[in-house]
Amino acid sequence: MNLIELPFMKSKISLRDFPSAKARREFLEKELEINLENIAKFTFTEEQVKGRNIENLIGATHIPLGIAGPLKILNTKYQILNTYIPLATTEGALVASISRGCKAISGASGACVEVETVGITRGPVFKTAGIAHGQKIKQWIQTHIPLISQITQKTSSHLKFLKADFAIVGRNLFVRFYFDSTDAMGMNMATIATQAIVKLIEQKTQAKCITLAGNFDIDKKPSWLNFISGRGKKVWAEVILPKKVVKEVLKTTPAKIVEVVNTKTHLGSIMSGSLGFNSHFANIIAAIFAATGQDLAHVVEGSLGVTTAEALENGELYFSIYLPDLIVGTVGGGTHLPTQQEALKIMAVSDVLEYCRAVGAAVLAGELSLIASLAEGTLAKAHQKLGRKK
Amino acid sequence: MNLIELPFMKSKISLRDFPSAKARREFLEKELEINLENIAKFTFTEEQVKGRNIENLIGATHIPLGIAGPLKILNTKYQILNTYIPLATTEGALVASISRGCKAISGASGACVEVETVGITRGPVFKTAGIAHGQKIKQWIQTHIPLISQITQKTSSHLKFLKADFAIVGRNLFVRFYFDSTDAMGMNMATIATQAIVKLIEQKTQAKCITLAGNFDIDKKPSWLNFISGRGKKVWAEVILPKKVVKEVLKTTPAKIVEVVNTKTHLGSIMSGSLGFNSHFANIIAAIFAATGQDLAHVVEGSLGVTTAEALENGELYFSIYLPDLIVGTVGGGTHLPTQQEALKIMAVSDVLEYCRAVGAAVLAGELSLIASLAEGTLAKAHQKLGRKK
Amino acid sequence: MNLIELPFMKSKISLRDFPSAKARREFLEKELEINLENIAKFTFTEEQVKGRNIENLIGATHIPLGIAGPLKILNTKYQILNTYIPLATTEGALVASISRGCKAISGASGACVEVETVGITRGPVFKTAGIAHGQKIKQWIQTHIPLISQITQKTSSHLKFLKADFAIVGRNLFVRFYFDSTDAMGMNMATIATQAIVKLIEQKTQAKCITLAGNFDIDKKPSWLNFISGRGKKVWAEVILPKKVVKEVLKTTPAKIVEVVNTKTHLGSIMSGSLGFNSHFANIIAAIFAATGQDLAHVVEGSLGVTTAEALENGELYFSIYLPDLIVGTVGGGTHLPTQQEALKIMAVSDVLEYCRAVGAAVLAGELSLIASLAEGTLAKAHQKLGRKK
Amino acid sequence: MNLIELPFMKSKISLRDFPSAKARREFLEKELEINLENIAKFTFTEEQVKGRNIENLIGATHIPLGIAGPLKILNTKYQILNTYIPLATTEGALVASISRGCKAISGASGACVEVETVGITRGPVFKTAGIAHGQKIKQWIQTHIPLISQITQKTSSHLKFLKADFAIVGRNLFVRFYFDSTDAMGMNMATIATQAIVKLIEQKTQAKCITLAGNFDIDKKPSWLNFISGRGKKVWAEVILPKKVVKEVLKTTPAKIVEVVNTKTHLGSIMSGSLGFNSHFANIIAAIFAATGQDLAHVVEGSLGVTTAEALENGELYFSIYLPDLIVGTVGGGTHLPTQQEALKIMAVSDVLEYCRAVGAAVLAGELSLIASLAEGTLAKAHQKLGRKK
Repeated sequence: MNLIELPFMKSKISLRDFPSAKARREFLEKELEINLENIAKFTFTEEQVKGRNIENLIGATHIPLGIAGPLKILNTKYQILNTYIPLATTEGALVASISRGCKAISGASGACVEVETVGITRGPVFKTAGIAHGQKIKQWIQTHIPLISQITQKTSSHLKFLKADFAIVGRNLFVRFYFDSTDAMGMNMATIATQAIVKLIEQKTQAKCITLAGNFDIDKKPSWLNFISGRGKKVWAEVILPKKVVKEVLKTTPAKIVEVVNTKTHLGSIMSGSLGFNSHFANIIAAIFAATGQDLAHVVEGSLGVTTAEALENGELYFSIYLPDLIVGTVGGGTHLPTQQEALKIMAVSDVLEYCRAVGAAVLAGELSLIASLAEGTLAKAHQKLGRKK
Repeated sequence: MNLIELPFMKSKISLRDFPSAKARREFLEKELEINLENIAKFTFTEEQVKGRNIENLIGATHIPLGIAGPLKILNTKYQILNTYIPLATTEGALVASISRGCKAISGASGACVEVETVGITRGPVFKTAGIAHGQKIKQWIQTHIPLISQITQKTSSHLKFLKADFAIVGRNLFVRFYFDSTDAMGMNMATIATQAIVKLIEQKTQAKCITLAGNFDIDKKPSWLNFISGRGKKVWAEVILPKKVVKEVLKTTPAKIVEVVNTKTHLGSIMSGSLGFNSHFANIIAAIFAATGQDLAHVVEGSLGVTTAEALENGELYFSIYLPDLIVGTVGGGTHLPTQQEALKIMAVSDVLEYCRAVGAAVLAGELSLIASLAEGTLAKAHQKLGRKK
Repeated sequence: MNLIELPFMKSKISLRDFPSAKARREFLEKELEINLENIAKFTFTEEQVKGRNIENLIGATHIPLGIAGPLKILNTKYQILNTYIPLATTEGALVASISRGCKAISGASGACVEVETVGITRGPVFKTAGIAHGQKIKQWIQTHIPLISQITQKTSSHLKFLKADFAIVGRNLFVRFYFDSTDAMGMNMATIATQAIVKLIEQKTQAKCITLAGNFDIDKKPSWLNFISGRGKKVWAEVILPKKVVKEVLKTTPAKIVEVVNTKTHLGSIMSGSLGFNSHFANIIAAIFAATGQDLAHVVEGSLGVTTAEALENGELYFSIYLPDLIVGTVGGGTHLPTQQEALKIMAVSDVLEYCRAVGAAVLAGELSLIASLAEGTLAKAHQKLGRKK
Repeated sequence: MNLIELPFMKSKISLRDFPSAKARREFLEKELEINLENIAKFTFTEEQVKGRNIENLIGATHIPLGIAGPLKILNTKYQILNTYIPLATTEGALVASISRGCKAISGASGACVEVETVGITRGPVFKTAGIAHGQKIKQWIQTHIPLISQITQKTSSHLKFLKADFAIVGRNLFVRFYFDSTDAMGMNMATIATQAIVKLIEQKTQAKCITLAGNFDIDKKPSWLNFISGRGKKVWAEVILPKKVVKEVLKTTPAKIVEVVNTKTHLGSIMSGSLGFNSHFANIIAAIFAATGQDLAHVVEGSLGVTTAEALENGELYFSIYLPDLIVGTVGGGTHLPTQQEALKIMAVSDVLEYCRAVGAAVLAGELSLIASLAEGTLAKAHQKLGRKK
């Protein structure tokens, strides 16, 4: 950081006032005596992102993009689908590990995935006169769901009101509205709809909204509410692996995998007071999210969930993952950007449900492979290899 | 996804076998009948990332990069430093909001930041004969700290063993080793050192290591253990804002900010069973992490923490944030990549502690600004503006 | 404990085989060379408790019983009710403190209390073939609610089936059945009904019940599920205190009470990773539960909940408590025993809802008084007084 | 409750003003037109409990007292000890179930128990000028431990200062002092010592104590801090059961017990967001606590903890429990009362460590037996039997 006040600071010019990314870069290069030639290279246009994805643009960050797969997934009619998984990451060994998981799953009968739409949530909090008043407003909302649905639809034809949950404590009424935002992640739409709903509630009751977003939503923070009730999409994925695949691809045994899952992901997370009963959901989620234009802060919610493993009586391995809180879209946000669009095309998903199925299967693959490494004690070996490069 | 099995899948060729990113792209383009011309553009070389940051490279993801600041930060000698904050994001309004926070803080006396090194952790779990045996191994470790320190240093001269915590349950001994990894994030180094330590422990006691990483570490998952004990760095940041700055820059009052902080970030998060008692730490953390080459899965841990606000007797606003679990480095990982290097140069930080100070101040700025928007009810308005663009 | 094996142990006689409490006492007195003359005194008959409340009876434990009140409570028609609160405890100062809270509340307009029946829960867990099978069984249950209601009613006319919640993870389907058990606590009835429901589910689907009680109930353990969804009864209580009452009865100010509530019960519990955002709900709950024959293990769930306080614009103090997880009954369990029956008569409650209202008001009184002591720094003084006696 | 204001309320007489329990009873009997003849019978004297255990005494609550055992426990020298467990409860089947567990354990090699003294905690919270000031006070405390130890000892010769933990957030410094209170539970002593320590800190630094008990203690509330760091005593107990004992005494198999422990107590509690990874620790803890004069509100903390089970390679069952947060004493509190004293004599424990060992073994017995019932599906059957009586 710069000890002496920079000339700029005295000038009272705001970065916002510059006409272009180039102008901002040139200013920074001069001000800080640095060179920003790499940041200057990007594939979107300023027009594409201005007032939509970013302000004070200066260029782009380039994150290495790798590819895993093909990954065999069964659709709901038990037809075999295949997909590639684009992964933007700087963590060595991650793509290789997910690839190995894909190979194991595809070498068996493929991943079975279930997706349930819980809905994106927005949650205002109202200041009430007291508990009875809070109950009354709650009842007013509960008896005016059709009206609230109408108002929602007026704000966006792509948004459908689903339901409302409540928590009353003292003079505070916390509400949690759920919306189906189809293929969009939906946080923006949900906020605009909630604004309209709140206006109505304030008019019709004596409630005063403290804030549109009262953390009973609860967005981009880990929480038991989202773990238990779900948020966005709930995704489950599972695979049954023959002993032979476990041995040849994963270099270990079903029994060892079960031991690591139970000891590490269940008991270890219990002893840590965690909400992530898994080995590394966040790694896979982060890499797919970065590649496909999701909101990276939602990696937080994607880290919640549970891995299970069982050694079946016939010697096969049952392995599963559960993501209760997956917040994604295939339109809106960063999904329209050129490199992100291309990544989505690699996945060849036709809507957000297919996207979730692919994400679920990829998390299954990544989780399976790391657990296998941990069971065999090869984690450090992989890191050592990487270490030598550095 | 593709219903019919693609030709590739039959060919049993692995993506690993292709000689270059270009070859992989061309293969995918043909196989999937798509065009990957944007992904093809990147500023690092294949050599730079191969065997270090990624496998199966096909190109790069471009994330828009914006800039906030200047942000006034006081150093430990109460000298004024100034920094710019590079932010890679696709979430409209985020950079503008952080910029407004920077303006408020810089319009007051600047951000005070404290950083404490807790250390990166790696946590093996051992299978023991029973509780007494677990206690014995624990005692062995506790009485051999100098030896463990030596072994650690042998694996890397940049790594210093700090301490060990323990949890015994049944036949399982969970250990949590803390290391100071200086300017590196350190997870790799810690893993390699732990491997060496575990080898020693297995030789000297009857313990059998189930896995090097038993989730008592606990890495990339939200957890009370990290919240309470800290992990990586603990960072606190605070600012005192005159009423005038609150009014002119943030368009609200100290009382309203206090109400939103107490009702939303404390009570709302309480009602949600959250570990994030803040409004959007994750947004700011994710944007800085993406810009500067941090591991994006560590956004999860960066979402933990607490915001506080108090209306002081003289009418000023006291505002603070606390990050108990910040996992970052200024060397290693993705920090060496060209655009990430340039972003770090924009910040002009000389080591990881300065980097943490800048991150803490940026989170303070972003948090302050969003809380102010929520207090004034302008959140939906901002989203509506963005909405019109889409 | 006894190092040498006692004669009894060799004899292979079981304590169950003794014909009476007296015989067991005499045996223990001889075996252990002790005198059990006080335990020998009790007011129930052996016939009353045998096969119902206890096995291997030897007598009774006498817990000192005190009284607080009268406590003014408003009923739902805002009529003034008055009640005394019986408190069985050995913790000095507790009854005095609750009494002071009663005085403050009764000196103001009285406690407003709201009660919501969530229902007692029992939660079997089924082993399924996989995720799709789990979903199928869940759907079967959801589409057979009328049948499940009928079966429930067959097992007890006092039990009404309310609803079912679900959690699927891997091959496990966790169910949470809610029942209204009217004036009984209902755990036994719910278990018997669940047994019948489970038998039906196993017959109609391929599910195999692992256990009737799979901890998704979740009984006698602190949990976010019960905090968020509620269990048994949700109870809210509140009071508005004039500044004068706060000063004269509680010896402090609204501002100080607000500071302690926010700093201790919210922020302090946040920093501790707690589910109890209060000062001592458990003390008051334990004392009433012991006095009135509730299951003492349910004190655990009664410790959950939140205290709030606000300094109103007119200078008055708003104070509230929220109990999301109160598990009680006025018939069954220990409520029929002579001293417990008399305690219930002191409360003069006509059903379980009235009982909950009294409990809520008592918790409000106890919480208010302790928070006031903490605000004034008189806690240690009270303990010192007690200390001198010991 | 009474709708019409009772005569008493008009009289402004306080229950405190009555000269005796008898006078209070007579007043209540007249006021409420009830009979309190059973409450009138008790074995302690008014003098014994006045100003020490209770205020406003009116008599006693009689809770049925049963006995389980003998229970074989190995001491630290692997000598066999035997103890009986007194259990005050109104929950039918509990004593029988614990007895069965005792039989199984005593039929095998006995329970191995480990106890670790963590210390009772008291935790003041200070209002500081800001983060740096908070750090400074923390450092002052850390560098004045010998002085704090001296001051502690001055307040009580039975109390030893152990250590201090800290949490800083904004202008709040939370402290957690740990004390060894030998055979007393120690909460009172710790409070008095903390008062003296706080006085010193306020004198020597600019800190202002908001309250002596800032919930970073954290007393009588479930919390991850106590789960992770421990409080009072940490207790582990384990037993290895031959297959034959599992079959003949517990009527099930090791494999079934392992399945129930993993599915219910681990996975089920995970899905519920619980801190109790067990089946019913609270039942056993509550019954022993009531029988032996412990503070019943501490049942809350005794409900935390983990059960584990493993099927050993030789076909035997390994079974364990872990209590991280056991708050007990063998002197002070309610332990001196006549029936409670006799119960302690039945246990024949010579100090608090022996008491903890017996509690740990009893929890092991009770947990083992219930898990076995759940594995065999006999829970509802037991409840049905009890049901018929009612």
